[in-house]
Amino acid sequence: MLPELLWVEAPLSDADWRELLREKRPEIILCAWETPGLPLEAAEHLKYLCYLCGSIRSLVPRELIERGLKVTNWGAVVSNTVAECALLLILAALRRVGNWSVAMRTQGQWKSGRHPDTLSLFGRRVGLHGLGAISRDLVRLVEPFNVQLSAYSPSVPDETFERLNVRRSETLEDLFSRADVLVELAPGKPDNYHLVGDDLLGLLPPHAVFVNLGRGMVVDEAALVRASQQRGLHIALDVYETEPLPVVSPLRSLDNITLLPHLGGPTPDRRRDCGELALQNLENYLASKPLTNLIDLGTYDRAT
Amino acid sequence: MLPELLWVEAPLSDADWRELLREKRPEIILCAWETPGLPLEAAEHLKYLCYLCGSIRSLVPRELIERGLKVTNWGAVVSNTVAECALLLILAALRRVGNWSVAMRTQGQWKSGRHPDTLSLFGRRVGLHGLGAISRDLVRLVEPFNVQLSAYSPSVPDETFERLNVRRSETLEDLFSRADVLVELAPGKPDNYHLVGDDLLGLLPPHAVFVNLGRGMVVDEAALVRASQQRGLHIALDVYETEPLPVVSPLRSLDNITLLPHLGGPTPDRRRDCGELALQNLENYLASKPLTNLIDLGTYDRAT
Repeated sequence: MLPELLWVEAPLSDADWRELLREKRPEIILCAWETPGLPLEAAEHLKYLCYLCGSIRSLVPRELIERGLKVTNWGAVVSNTVAECALLLILAALRRVGNWSVAMRTQGQWKSGRHPDTLSLFGRRVGLHGLGAISRDLVRLVEPFNVQLSAYSPSVPDETFERLNVRRSETLEDLFSRADVLVELAPGKPDNYHLVGDDLLGLLPPHAVFVNLGRGMVVDEAALVRASQQRGLHIALDVYETEPLPVVSPLRSLDNITLLPHLGGPTPDRRRDCGELALQNLENYLASKPLTNLIDLGTYDRAT
Repeated sequence: MLPELLWVEAPLSDADWRELLREKRPEIILCAWETPGLPLEAAEHLKYLCYLCGSIRSLVPRELIERGLKVTNWGAVVSNTVAECALLLILAALRRVGNWSVAMRTQGQWKSGRHPDTLSLFGRRVGLHGLGAISRDLVRLVEPFNVQLSAYSPSVPDETFERLNVRRSETLEDLFSRADVLVELAPGKPDNYHLVGDDLLGLLPPHAVFVNLGRGMVVDEAALVRASQQRGLHIALDVYETEPLPVVSPLRSLDNITLLPHLGGPTPDRRRDCGELALQNLENYLASKPLTNLIDLGTYDRAT
C-alpha cells in the first residue's frame, strides 16, 4: 500500500507548520530550504526526515535525534560541485580573473607588456585546511596538475592521507608555511572562530593565493584585508563572516580579489543528484533498508 | 671547444640587427619576443634559430627554412598552461564569474534567492574546435569531470580520437549543435576568417557557453554580441579580432561575459619550461642530435 502524500508549499509560518504537523502527524517529511524548525512534539509521530539539502542544525533539535529520529541530507553527493568551485577559485586567483573582469569590463583596460602577474597551478604546493568530502573530491580534480598536496585535519586517519597521496601537516603553521595555494575548507564550529588570522596568513609564501570555500567565520576578514594590502596576497572567496556580504565590506574594494556570492553549493543543474539520492533513501526507508548519509549525533555535533 | 657567445639586449632597431648579423655572422641565434625579422642574407651563416616562444612567421621568412635553416620553438611545452586557462574560462563561464566579479566588486551586489543562474561542468557535452596540443592537454584536465567530448579537426587521424576517447564531429554544424560547452581552438589561418558566425552560434543548445582561447579572427565578434544579447549565450574570451581589445568594443559591455587580455599563453612562472627545452635543443644541435619541435615547411604554413 502506498503511503498518503501531502504536498506543502513553502514558505509557511512557524505557527501553520506546527498546526499542520499536529493535524497530519506525518511519519516521513521530505523537505528543503525554507522549512521551519521542527518542534519536539514531532517525536510522537515523525520517524524519518529526508532533507534534500545540507545543514540541519536549525531545522532539527538535537533531542529529536537522541529520541530516535532518522535524518538524512545531501551528504557527499554535492561535494563534487563544491570542489569544482574550489578549483575555479584557485585558477581564478592564480590568473587574477577578478581583477581582469573589472578592468576589462568597467575600465576599458588591457594588459601592459608581456609579463602579466599570473601563475599556473602546474607543479604548485597546495595546502588543504580540512580533508572532508569536498577536499577529497578536490584532490581528484587537481590530480592532472601534478601538484604537491598537504592537508591539516587531525581527525582524519593516516590511511586516508596515504590513499589520497596527501602529506599530513601536523600543524596549521606547517600547512600555511608550505602552501603556494591555501584552500580553506575547515568547518564553521565555534572552536574555529577566527582561527585564520594575521599569524597564519603571515606564514604563506610570497605569491601565495588564499581561497575560502568553507565557512566565513573561520577567517578574520580584517587580517585578510591586511595581508592583501600589505603583502599583496591574492584572494578568492565564496563565503564571508556576514552573508550577504555588506555593501561596505573592504573586501569589495581590494585590488587582488575574486568574489562569488556563496555559489559553491550544488549548481541548480546538479540538484537532481540530491533528488535521486532522496528518492533512493525514501525507498530504502519504506523497505527497512539502510539509509545513505544518516546523521548520527557525532555528525550532528560536527556539522556547520 | 665552447662556441663564442654574444648577449644582445632587446629592443634593437632593424638596422642595428642587420648590421650585427653582418658583422658577427652567428651560426646559432637564441631569441624571444621583440627580435626583429631575419634578412634573407642570414642564410649565408645562420644554421639554427632556437626561438624561446611560439609564432615565428614574422621573424623567419619561409625562404630561410626552404634553404635549410633549422628553427625550433616552444611547441607543445606551453600547451598545458593554455589548456589550464581554457579550463578556467569554461568553469568561469558556467559560474558567471565575470558577472559576479563586476557585481560584487563595483556594484555592492549579492545573489538574490537560492537559485543562481549557474551550471556545473560535471557530465556536460564539451565540443572542441581543433584537436591540437592544447585540446589534447585540455582533454586530460577535464577527465575528472566525466564529460562527453567531441571534436572537429579533419586533419587529425582517427587513432588520435580513439586514444583520447573523443567523438569525431564530421561537421562544425554537428559539433556546435551538441556542445553545452564549445571551446574554440582553431588556428588563425585565412581560411578560418569569421568561420564562426550567426549560423554556427545559433546551433548551440540553450544554456551553452562559448570559450575562445585560439585566435580572435576565427570568430565574428558582431555575431557573438548578437548571440549574447538575443539568446543569452554565456561567453568567456582570451583572444580578440583586434588586440588590444578596443576600449569601445561592445564585448566589454555585454551582460554575461568573462574577459581576459590574452593571458592564455605560458604564465611567467612556467617560462622556465621553455628555457629548459631550448637548452636541451642547443645541446642536441651542438652534438648533431635530433631537435625537438623542429619547424618544417608544413608546420610553418599551418602556423598562426
